[in-house]
Amino acid sequence: MHAPSHTYGTGTAAALAALAAQLPPHALVTESDVLDAHRTDHAPFCPSGSPAALVRAHSTEEVSLVLRTADEHRIPVVPQGARTGLAGGANAVDGCILLSVERMDRILEIDTTDQVAVVEAGVVNAVFSRAVAEHGLFYPPDPSSWEMSTLGGNAATNAGGLCCVKYGVTGDFVRGLTVVLADGTVLRTGRRTAKGVAGYDLTHLFVGSEGTLGVITEVVLALRPAAQTPLTAVAFFPTPAEACAAVADYMADGTRPSLLELMDRPTMDVVSAYRDLGFPPEAGAVLIAQSDRGDQAAEDLKRFAHVAQTHRGDAVVADDPAEAEMLLEARRLVGIATQSLGAYLAEDVCVPRRVLADLVDGVADIARRHRVLITCVAHAGDGNLHPHVIFDPARTDEVERAQRAFGAVMDLGLALGGTITGEHGVGVLKRDWLTKELGPAGLRVHHSIKRALDPHGILNPGKVLADRV
Amino acid sequence: MHAPSHTYGTGTAAALAALAAQLPPHALVTESDVLDAHRTDHAPFCPSGSPAALVRAHSTEEVSLVLRTADEHRIPVVPQGARTGLAGGANAVDGCILLSVERMDRILEIDTTDQVAVVEAGVVNAVFSRAVAEHGLFYPPDPSSWEMSTLGGNAATNAGGLCCVKYGVTGDFVRGLTVVLADGTVLRTGRRTAKGVAGYDLTHLFVGSEGTLGVITEVVLALRPAAQTPLTAVAFFPTPAEACAAVADYMADGTRPSLLELMDRPTMDVVSAYRDLGFPPEAGAVLIAQSDRGDQAAEDLKRFAHVAQTHRGDAVVADDPAEAEMLLEARRLVGIATQSLGAYLAEDVCVPRRVLADLVDGVADIARRHRVLITCVAHAGDGNLHPHVIFDPARTDEVERAQRAFGAVMDLGLALGGTITGEHGVGVLKRDWLTKELGPAGLRVHHSIKRALDPHGILNPGKVLADRV
Repeated sequence: MHAPSHTYGTGTAAALAALAAQLPPHALVTESDVLDAHRTDHAPFCPSGSPAALVRAHSTEEVSLVLRTADEHRIPVVPQGARTGLAGGANAVDGCILLSVERMDRILEIDTTDQVAVVEAGVVNAVFSRAVAEHGLFYPPDPSSWEMSTLGGNAATNAGGLCCVKYGVTGDFVRGLTVVLADGTVLRTGRRTAKGVAGYDLTHLFVGSEGTLGVITEVVLALRPAAQTPLTAVAFFPTPAEACAAVADYMADGTRPSLLELMDRPTMDVVSAYRDLGFPPEAGAVLIAQSDRGDQAAEDLKRFAHVAQTHRGDAVVADDPAEAEMLLEARRLVGIATQSLGAYLAEDVCVPRRVLADLVDGVADIARRHRVLITCVAHAGDGNLHPHVIFDPARTDEVERAQRAFGAVMDLGLALGGTITGEHGVGVLKRDWLTKELGPAGLRVHHSIKRALDPHGILNPGKVLADRV
Repeated sequence: MHAPSHTYGTGTAAALAALAAQLPPHALVTESDVLDAHRTDHAPFCPSGSPAALVRAHSTEEVSLVLRTADEHRIPVVPQGARTGLAGGANAVDGCILLSVERMDRILEIDTTDQVAVVEAGVVNAVFSRAVAEHGLFYPPDPSSWEMSTLGGNAATNAGGLCCVKYGVTGDFVRGLTVVLADGTVLRTGRRTAKGVAGYDLTHLFVGSEGTLGVITEVVLALRPAAQTPLTAVAFFPTPAEACAAVADYMADGTRPSLLELMDRPTMDVVSAYRDLGFPPEAGAVLIAQSDRGDQAAEDLKRFAHVAQTHRGDAVVADDPAEAEMLLEARRLVGIATQSLGAYLAEDVCVPRRVLADLVDGVADIARRHRVLITCVAHAGDGNLHPHVIFDPARTDEVERAQRAFGAVMDLGLALGGTITGEHGVGVLKRDWLTKELGPAGLRVHHSIKRALDPHGILNPGKVLADRV
């Protein structure tokens, strides 16, 4: 370990010295190149400050030590997992301690009878999902980052994914937490039983609070029995509006698909430019649907094809897993294909399904008005649209237009009765729009809860909520 | 309306006069017989105080007026729905205003496309469930009180029921709330979209908070497509331990029953004394299982019969709905048959399924040790046991033994890694045990949140948490 940085106040220097004395070797890092490498998450164009130190905690006790020390010295603490977030929630603030739980990566227990597991916060989603699969169990939440993101981060942001449409989001699987509070107190919330109503639901107060109320160090997760291999279908539509109408009809129809994704024409073009998958040139939108209901899956997808047809959709059901894999590949390539175009802002509005078509059409209109390229991919069954606003970061005017378009999409989502964020969270990226969504009463309650749990405001300050005025 | 009572301080008299002047005629009631009739919920042996008034609110605005006025004058307010609770959560405290939302009974919206509804808090569960069924939709939460209890009360207590084992509890269906805070502020929480992570999950902080953090006046509820008619099976076992082992195995096996109930021998005896349903005299326990998976239901129950057999269970699958109805009748009669014996305390511990047998055996032991009759019925698939401690209220020593047995059951539930309440809530009945379950850190956080949202402590004081010291 190097000597603590002297850039900050004597309080910080004293705190870092105290931590250095009590933490194991190498846990506290102040090398500027390492700090720089940990300043941001995956959100582009979010402000990040200059951290004073990084602590790689190996236990709840170490997290507690860091918070107790930081709280005494009023040093901001930014909790970090794999920093795959898309809203700047894990970005450094000036003079902060970056508190990483990535090294807390033990799966503590997998209970096959009660179908529940206990994990440390730094366990990677994919590692865990594979581990439970070996026991014939299934952990559904599958954010796109699942090969990298941690379960603690997933819980802190209440991450979604492709399976949500049938199985729900991360929070639906969190039964209990170990959380370290701002003053270092170790709190256990919730339960490991299927049901329980003893006291306030603190568990779900911390889930999705993006590290502003406490630092999650352990998670009790519900599991499900292994799902059956899904069948896959794809349907091409003349227009996005018709694809959205098919989504609304199919979801209202009774069977719940295990995946229902939409891509608009600009998305198909971006994917095609990256790899030619033979999209029909006249298609305005495509839906990909899966059913994992075993013997009933074929019937489900026949029904999907029928609903698609009533909206001028042309559906094909994959004959085998290899063909299904090919159909899904298009969806999987969206991220990398979009990245290959340069910078983009990933939107995340979620609206009632009945107005999804209005949202998609409205986004196309926003793209035209602001003269930017916006591609739309959606967890359509949930009404959760991800418009990607693509722009050249070297061109100031284009950046400005992109940012205005980005805001216009959120305003439209709110106007349609939706939310500014379906699964990515608020972070710093959407803080100002959160004020709009919550309204004065909601904002006041948020601040009062923040104050109650973090009276000195050291926990991830400026994230989700603006600093107290 | 009669003149406000003069039993209380001038503050109360002034507040009631102010309310009388602003509320519609008949909304404010101070007649002592009416107040007496509203002093308690369905929990026996819970203390209740003497209310100053009852307000029957017809709108969120009236609820807001009552709370604003009460907060100014520091008058306790006890929110009430249908008062079917089993923990004394709706019981009056001295000098309080009973604030009933029973008259707020409008179903404001049923949206079949997005499968979501908006209701006022006083809508009765059964009325709502039937209304959505007419639209081909399904609202699963089905507490035993569903013919009487209100959706606002269900949300405030996070009520469970028989369907939970497959579909989840009330909270799993609550997407958003209108809540009036202690100072009269009207807060809207949550969303009506399928997903959303904008800000803290205030919705689920209020769900299950038993009127101690705010008064719920409207609820946004998720719905499901109509379920298929279930098939029913019943299996008799030599011992409860074998029945519990079958539950654990069947639940771990993959298919999720839509109902899985257990009754022990004492319960069968109590039911038989009320109505002879021809239980086999040698059976130590019975399981009732349902599957509503359409074409797969028969296969599910065959599997259930097989699992039962491996634990010496003797299973019968009902041939038709009439026979199924007969099998379920036994379960439905438990309440009324138990009531016919005199007084009883309804327990509600919930444990991991792997130790359900230990809990059932332990309860039998507690009954022997305390020389009281305890019958056990369980939402077995959830590990949620309802031991009914039956006693003669006229015999002081028996009451004392019953109360000690009641406590011993909760201690056992906690020792087995469970919770003191799976679905009934804390109220005043279990407040002291909640302290044990939460521990000092949990209790401290509960109090700090209570203070943040209800600084003058007017909302349902003494419920869930002891009054601040």
